[in-house]
Amino acid sequence: MTQYTIAQLLKQTAPQDVEIKGWVRTFRAKRFIALNDGSTLNNIQCVVDFENTPEDVLKRITTGAAVHIKGELIESQGQGQTVEIAVTSIVILGDSDPEKYPIQPKKHSFEFLRENAHLRTRTNTFSAVMRLRSTLSFAVHKYFNDNGFYYMHTPIVTGSDAEGAGEMFRVSALDPKNPPLKDDGSVDYSKDFFGKETNLTVSGQLEAETYAMSLGKVYTFGPTFRAENSNTSRHLAEFWMIEPEVAFMDLAGNMDLAEDFMKSVITYVLEHNSEDLEFLDQRLFDEEKTKPQAERSEMRLIDKLKFVTENNFKRVSYTEAIDILKNSKPNKKKKFNYIIEEWGVDLQSEHERFLVEKHFKCPVILFDYPADIKAFYMRLNEDGKTVRAMDILFPGIGEIVGGSQREERLDVLKEKMAALNIPEEELWWYLDLRKYGTAVHSGFGLGFERLVMFATGMGNIKDVIPFPRTPQNAEF
Amino acid sequence: MTQYTIAQLLKQTAPQDVEIKGWVRTFRAKRFIALNDGSTLNNIQCVVDFENTPEDVLKRITTGAAVHIKGELIESQGQGQTVEIAVTSIVILGDSDPEKYPIQPKKHSFEFLRENAHLRTRTNTFSAVMRLRSTLSFAVHKYFNDNGFYYMHTPIVTGSDAEGAGEMFRVSALDPKNPPLKDDGSVDYSKDFFGKETNLTVSGQLEAETYAMSLGKVYTFGPTFRAENSNTSRHLAEFWMIEPEVAFMDLAGNMDLAEDFMKSVITYVLEHNSEDLEFLDQRLFDEEKTKPQAERSEMRLIDKLKFVTENNFKRVSYTEAIDILKNSKPNKKKKFNYIIEEWGVDLQSEHERFLVEKHFKCPVILFDYPADIKAFYMRLNEDGKTVRAMDILFPGIGEIVGGSQREERLDVLKEKMAALNIPEEELWWYLDLRKYGTAVHSGFGLGFERLVMFATGMGNIKDVIPFPRTPQNAEF
Repeated sequence: MTQYTIAQLLKQTAPQDVEIKGWVRTFRAKRFIALNDGSTLNNIQCVVDFENTPEDVLKRITTGAAVHIKGELIESQGQGQTVEIAVTSIVILGDSDPEKYPIQPKKHSFEFLRENAHLRTRTNTFSAVMRLRSTLSFAVHKYFNDNGFYYMHTPIVTGSDAEGAGEMFRVSALDPKNPPLKDDGSVDYSKDFFGKETNLTVSGQLEAETYAMSLGKVYTFGPTFRAENSNTSRHLAEFWMIEPEVAFMDLAGNMDLAEDFMKSVITYVLEHNSEDLEFLDQRLFDEEKTKPQAERSEMRLIDKLKFVTENNFKRVSYTEAIDILKNSKPNKKKKFNYIIEEWGVDLQSEHERFLVEKHFKCPVILFDYPADIKAFYMRLNEDGKTVRAMDILFPGIGEIVGGSQREERLDVLKEKMAALNIPEEELWWYLDLRKYGTAVHSGFGLGFERLVMFATGMGNIKDVIPFPRTPQNAEF
Repeated sequence: MTQYTIAQLLKQTAPQDVEIKGWVRTFRAKRFIALNDGSTLNNIQCVVDFENTPEDVLKRITTGAAVHIKGELIESQGQGQTVEIAVTSIVILGDSDPEKYPIQPKKHSFEFLRENAHLRTRTNTFSAVMRLRSTLSFAVHKYFNDNGFYYMHTPIVTGSDAEGAGEMFRVSALDPKNPPLKDDGSVDYSKDFFGKETNLTVSGQLEAETYAMSLGKVYTFGPTFRAENSNTSRHLAEFWMIEPEVAFMDLAGNMDLAEDFMKSVITYVLEHNSEDLEFLDQRLFDEEKTKPQAERSEMRLIDKLKFVTENNFKRVSYTEAIDILKNSKPNKKKKFNYIIEEWGVDLQSEHERFLVEKHFKCPVILFDYPADIKAFYMRLNEDGKTVRAMDILFPGIGEIVGGSQREERLDVLKEKMAALNIPEEELWWYLDLRKYGTAVHSGFGLGFERLVMFATGMGNIKDVIPFPRTPQNAEF
């Protein structure tokens, strides 16, 4: 007798003797167990011969219980499945008290399930989301591996806070109550574990550049952190980031890479997780129906994914985009919360979504942003006021990718750092890349959870990572 | 004219017009550039027509300089390569001052290169090591993906310090000089970012168990941390760990999985990185020659890898191993630093290596360890004194994998926690797994850097991770 997973079992031909272990999702009419083992969204129906099963066993077949079933795989009598198991033996491995088990066979709110994040993958929605997250991760690694990139692990604990991408968390092993102090009263970090003040990384990009300038094509995929007190549906204090970095590649190549990458990983999940996607597509559709017409999405989930894989991304300079926005209806009628008046302002999510969803009706890559609103390491254009930055905007989500060609000229980079008071000693190694064999190079960053939100249609970023870290919450 | 990487170029047929960008490794006789772009260990030879190249360009062709070369790919005249490029045009993209460039075309000490970790992948050894590290990472993901496992990202910042696997780093956003205090004078972490005291994770296992008990087969692959002040060649404060966890799998299944996994990922690098491995094999062989005969390894690197893939791992109980060690020559002759006298002691690296290298001459899995020397979550055997733990021992390195069947019985687990003063409130969610649908489950942990050390033959763990974090060091 072979022990299969349910995913395998559902593809077997009947009849044959089988055994299976899993968890009871529902048990109805003392007869029909819907059994799940996580290998697929689908349950297998196990038909219990209740007349010949002791009452005390039947009582223990409750939602959440772990069971070991032996029986015959047969063609299903009922609708909704092709095969089912005629149970000949059932052993209860682990009980689940129906009075206490938090995951009842009914609809729970996402808020409630967040408080039970250790159990929420026992629901269809969260098992589908986390399977998709896993597939997306693999698609990321596969894409880069297939295209000659090397995966590198950039450090999590960092002694440099130069990038300035956001507020950082301090990492320390000093006595928190009585830290050693210097003569001037400040904390003496030379006595700390690393001999200096250290923080959790906000980005692996600068380190990734060092490897791009030797190995050619590299990428990071690791956790990054922001100590920002924003408790929104789009922010996490701890999230995973993907950052490719490529030597000898300019901004146009960077756009090509990002577009190809995004299309490739989304195609991969469309091909490999159709059941989970169809379930999430329906879930989102049902949820949208409860909203007022005006707030509903025009596209269903799978349509939105195909919209990305099947359309060329429209490339538009920031300057063009500002013109479009300035002359747009919502701007003239003051429907935007932030009215666009002049060149140089940062775009808000409402502007990005207008460009993607209303104006161009396709994914958009904005490029050549004003230098003043972008990071110090971005390549200054010949106009002296814009940098070779790019942002990719997606329907429903706005910015999903941010990248740039990097400033490869030592003198220009030093000037920029000086203007922003970034000490050269902090980034001596980063400057070395411009001293020894510098060259054009580019890369981008993608917040992985944004991608998972897009691919699953989930509206809250807390629901696409196993155990979210947010202000006031580090449970589990 | 197609722009190839050097890896691609070396497989092209001559003659054809080509262009290439890369960094000069050496330039000799004003004629022969050894050019590298990181895509392979191998350089491509570019032959400069020095009589028709301006002297000021020739002068700038220095080690480390970035260049853009056009020319004709031709069959090589010289030895050591099949094709080379007859250069028709060379543009210097980025200079490299030969007086200042730290990476000279000579042998540098690993200590020196550690101080220049941002440039060390410009050497053969470190580019080979980091390419192998990347391939191994991909092999890990591929193995689990091919075998129906889901990748999960367990949290890095954790509010629980229950596992007790080692000293932890504190993560905080409080003012380090004047943290808010409670009435009793202790730090008031309720005012900190997460509303409680938080640390960097030492393991994702407990969280992985929550997903195994719903999705069936899962694994983590992420950074973990130890704030231990041990500055050795085998310890890092920040390292990457792989932790699979499988529902309905017992200790025997766990051993099968670990053996199959280790063989699979090592086979993968043998098949995909032969050039890098051959280089590292020779490097290690040369290094070993400088050692006294008695300290030299009996096997070359590639032989050692094949030794793992081609031999069944010998499974031996801790009790048997103690008997073997007690009666061994080095124990009787008091050659061990730690003499084995009685059942119950923890094994040292010298004992592990004796078992693998001298006694069994194959990889060894020790299992059923004394409960007292293992973690609280390991499944207690019926004898009441051993637990279903396993360690895998490898030649040259000792313990490389540690795992166990997990205690699935609520009452036994609670007793164990009580005995170790682990409060139940800390791990309420972990206990929930035993309350609702508990079942036999198992998993193991593998320090990724140990695997990279084994696969590359590098002797210091600081040399197999891009930017090592160790006591007094968080540079870059």
